[in-house]
Amino acid sequence: MIGQLNHVAIVVPDLAVSRERYTKVLGTNVSAPVDLHEHGIAVCFVELPNTKTELMTPLGTKSPVSAFLGRNPSGGMHHICYEVRDLRAARDHLVAGGARVLGTGEPKLGAHGLPVLFLHPKDFDGTLIELEEIAQ
Amino acid sequence: MIGQLNHVAIVVPDLAVSRERYTKVLGTNVSAPVDLHEHGIAVCFVELPNTKTELMTPLGTKSPVSAFLGRNPSGGMHHICYEVRDLRAARDHLVAGGARVLGTGEPKLGAHGLPVLFLHPKDFDGTLIELEEIAQ
Repeated sequence: MIGQLNHVAIVVPDLAVSRERYTKVLGTNVSAPVDLHEHGIAVCFVELPNTKTELMTPLGTKSPVSAFLGRNPSGGMHHICYEVRDLRAARDHLVAGGARVLGTGEPKLGAHGLPVLFLHPKDFDGTLIELEEIAQ
Repeated sequence: MIGQLNHVAIVVPDLAVSRERYTKVLGTNVSAPVDLHEHGIAVCFVELPNTKTELMTPLGTKSPVSAFLGRNPSGGMHHICYEVRDLRAARDHLVAGGARVLGTGEPKLGAHGLPVLFLHPKDFDGTLIELEEIAQ
């Protein structure tokens, strides 16, 4: 059911500082930062040959990652995103298996403009899992 | 310098339970569990089309991930492993850039039988980064 690992997301306290460190010290290509006001985050992507690492930081006072950064002032790994081909079918299979979907359970447009759902971290070893529906 | 994302590692409280959940509920292929006594962990791998997720749990009383599980009883994301072609050259570049390498700074054979180094989480947004030297 689960396809590729789309990205691993890391919350960082200062996007510009992290971007420079990934570029200069780790020697990676990192995309230009983008403010996603409607999602309350600013992001850039570490472009790896097989997947990507998302660096994200809160934008505005109501950011969904502000509380995480409050608990982890240095930042930290936030979630893993896996691709699925049919998000509603995946959700139904997951719920039938006892997993909890966060929010209303209905897919929303995620930060990358594709339908997403998040699974309850308590059902997956303290790990927040995002499922993203990719084009067929 | 950094190549592919080799794996994301998640510490889990019960490997058999997690393995079954990833297999049945997420619908993934998961390798058979292997006890790595010399590393103090038992592991299995969620096999994804482009990379893998490592599920690991402490083995024995001196496991390097026992303290992590003590702080995070439900489990949690533990580290990200990136591939490099020349581990010592990567280390020298990182140290010149101000990053700290854990331990003696000399590569050791990791859980997968390849030379590895770990970078200080404080230098990378609270994220423990493993570098693994892959065959040329």
